[in-house]
Amino acid sequence: MNISDRPIYLDYAAATPVADFVVEAMMPYLSDIFYNPSSSYFAAVTVRREYEAAKSTLAQSFGAKGDELVMTAGATESVNLAFHQSHGHVVTTAIEHPAVLEAAKKREHTLVSVNEKGRVSVDDVISAIRPNTDFISIGFANSELGTIQPIRKLAQAIDLVRKERVEQGNTTPLLFHSDASQGFGLIDIHVARLGVDLLTLNAAKIYGPKQVGLLWIKPSVEMTADIVGGGQERGLRSGTENIAGVIGFSVAAKRAAQIQKSESARIASLRDMLQKRLVESFEIAVVLGDNKHRLPGHLSIAFAGIDAERIIFMVEDDVLVATGSACSANKQTASHVLTAIGLDDEHLGGSLRMTLGNGSDEASTTRAADILIAALTKEYARLKEAA
Amino acid sequence: MNISDRPIYLDYAAATPVADFVVEAMMPYLSDIFYNPSSSYFAAVTVRREYEAAKSTLAQSFGAKGDELVMTAGATESVNLAFHQSHGHVVTTAIEHPAVLEAAKKREHTLVSVNEKGRVSVDDVISAIRPNTDFISIGFANSELGTIQPIRKLAQAIDLVRKERVEQGNTTPLLFHSDASQGFGLIDIHVARLGVDLLTLNAAKIYGPKQVGLLWIKPSVEMTADIVGGGQERGLRSGTENIAGVIGFSVAAKRAAQIQKSESARIASLRDMLQKRLVESFEIAVVLGDNKHRLPGHLSIAFAGIDAERIIFMVEDDVLVATGSACSANKQTASHVLTAIGLDDEHLGGSLRMTLGNGSDEASTTRAADILIAALTKEYARLKEAA
Repeated sequence: MNISDRPIYLDYAAATPVADFVVEAMMPYLSDIFYNPSSSYFAAVTVRREYEAAKSTLAQSFGAKGDELVMTAGATESVNLAFHQSHGHVVTTAIEHPAVLEAAKKREHTLVSVNEKGRVSVDDVISAIRPNTDFISIGFANSELGTIQPIRKLAQAIDLVRKERVEQGNTTPLLFHSDASQGFGLIDIHVARLGVDLLTLNAAKIYGPKQVGLLWIKPSVEMTADIVGGGQERGLRSGTENIAGVIGFSVAAKRAAQIQKSESARIASLRDMLQKRLVESFEIAVVLGDNKHRLPGHLSIAFAGIDAERIIFMVEDDVLVATGSACSANKQTASHVLTAIGLDDEHLGGSLRMTLGNGSDEASTTRAADILIAALTKEYARLKEAA
Repeated sequence: MNISDRPIYLDYAAATPVADFVVEAMMPYLSDIFYNPSSSYFAAVTVRREYEAAKSTLAQSFGAKGDELVMTAGATESVNLAFHQSHGHVVTTAIEHPAVLEAAKKREHTLVSVNEKGRVSVDDVISAIRPNTDFISIGFANSELGTIQPIRKLAQAIDLVRKERVEQGNTTPLLFHSDASQGFGLIDIHVARLGVDLLTLNAAKIYGPKQVGLLWIKPSVEMTADIVGGGQERGLRSGTENIAGVIGFSVAAKRAAQIQKSESARIASLRDMLQKRLVESFEIAVVLGDNKHRLPGHLSIAFAGIDAERIIFMVEDDVLVATGSACSANKQTASHVLTAIGLDDEHLGGSLRMTLGNGSDEASTTRAADILIAALTKEYARLKEAA
């Protein structure tokens, strides 16, 4: 199929294609350089060195060091490993990814609510902390709305709680974890500036391979493993290393960091154009999320009265868009995120998420706007007739 | 580097190169067909169907059904998920892979010893079962020795214990897990014939991609998840599916099953030739493992007095061989497997493992024999001179 015959992709938040240069970098490690890095001979030792070098490059892209990373099979595993450190009460928000929510459910936990833009207040998080709270997990940006959380301010406030605990003689540790899978590559993510203790990142959202993720661990944090065995990744995550995958993640992250500013600006301007077209065409359209604190590629709009799934199917030959997040989409239930920001049923069912990425350009985005407007116009006309 | 310039690879038990046809099958799922299978649109639904079809093909290669598989990031994760089902006493052997041994260490456990050939006795395993034993894990074949365990007979004996428990009113479940990563593709593995409840398999040992594994679960077995989140893999292992990896695993398994008989015979005959050459050249050589019950590609020989690591480094420009398993090799400690079969220090340090695979042929194996014999001869001469 010719690339121009393929539907215009507006679902980059669900999955990104692996970039050609990433596939190219991975290929030798699938075929020629396949050695087990734990083997003794020089060819395998070389693979180990290249693996460590790739981790180092990857870490540099967000201000960290290679040996601070535990490589995993994706963000979900990273989140689970982070939560594995908690033995007390957990604080998180109501709009987190299912990995966070399900891991929290296994423990005593509090879900802090967010405002109508999907943003959490620092005070609300701090108020939810109990004497036995040892773990706080708040996503860097929400995958459905693109709303960016005040991670740095949260980290500073959490640090004050730690200081109070020292004064009070409360020795319960208090870890702050953030899943920045949504945002990495689009926003400057630097661990020192964020101030978190644990950070989850994912290759599959930045044009790297699927099932490759990492958990960054602040050097002072003591960790215990969930998956045990051969002792790889400093004993924190056993299993023969995914050399090709980590090489792919590394080159994807390096490139993303290099072009981040210009690419984010380019994507945001296309997104703004798409938003303008849709909002101008439908007075009823409500743009969701936080305009001030929003990922550059994200556009979530509620079209009251519409069945968003119908729109998806109407346009799927030409444009690929989402309703809610991909993870909850197949469960036929209302999005927990849209429920948490207080959308009524009419807006809930009519919410479309459009996320732009490296393949988006002016021509395709304009065409996508035309197609979406035509479908929505047709659907509103049908509903009017049926009423 | 030209293929003929590369060292002869005799370490297939540590890692296998990804076959060309496997890479070819994976490629479209890295680039064009990258959609998140949880998305709603048709292009993503198609990916989901292809993923399920690949699981089905994969399952067929060992007599199972697609929906009985939980796809993981490799054998180590599969083993950990299997052990996650245990809340009581565990029975395993002293020569298991570190994943099994470390998972067992987290629980009340008994390590059953093996004979000098690395084979476990059914009676010893059954005797180790306590009233609160709920999990037994025994590898199909040992990675260092290639010794194949009597899995079917063990399963039958374990079934009798289950029947006794029913009579005695003991409601403790008793699961039998086997990691058949070593053996799959070389020996006919059929779940119904094996009689196990849980089976771990790994793509990386059958010319598939690294970090792709599975846990087969007998339909009657109730499972709980370790890694939680979006609810993929029937809720038993969350995380966006590794489409490319599973497609690769599937075609690798299908091919392996098709050529298994002839390829195993071919590899065994090359292995026998290599063994004959080495044993004829060195009277002191002791072939380890169980000649009757041994994987076709495995050859483990102890050369008393030799430092096996020295031999590895002497020949590494021309031949790649292993000492002990890759996993313990980099820990500078004696192999727990060779210790468990009762090798003395002199034999322990002089043990070489040579494992053959799809790239092995008569010319390269003959050449490898020449090179190894020359190195060993030189080394024995040096030792004699030094004495």
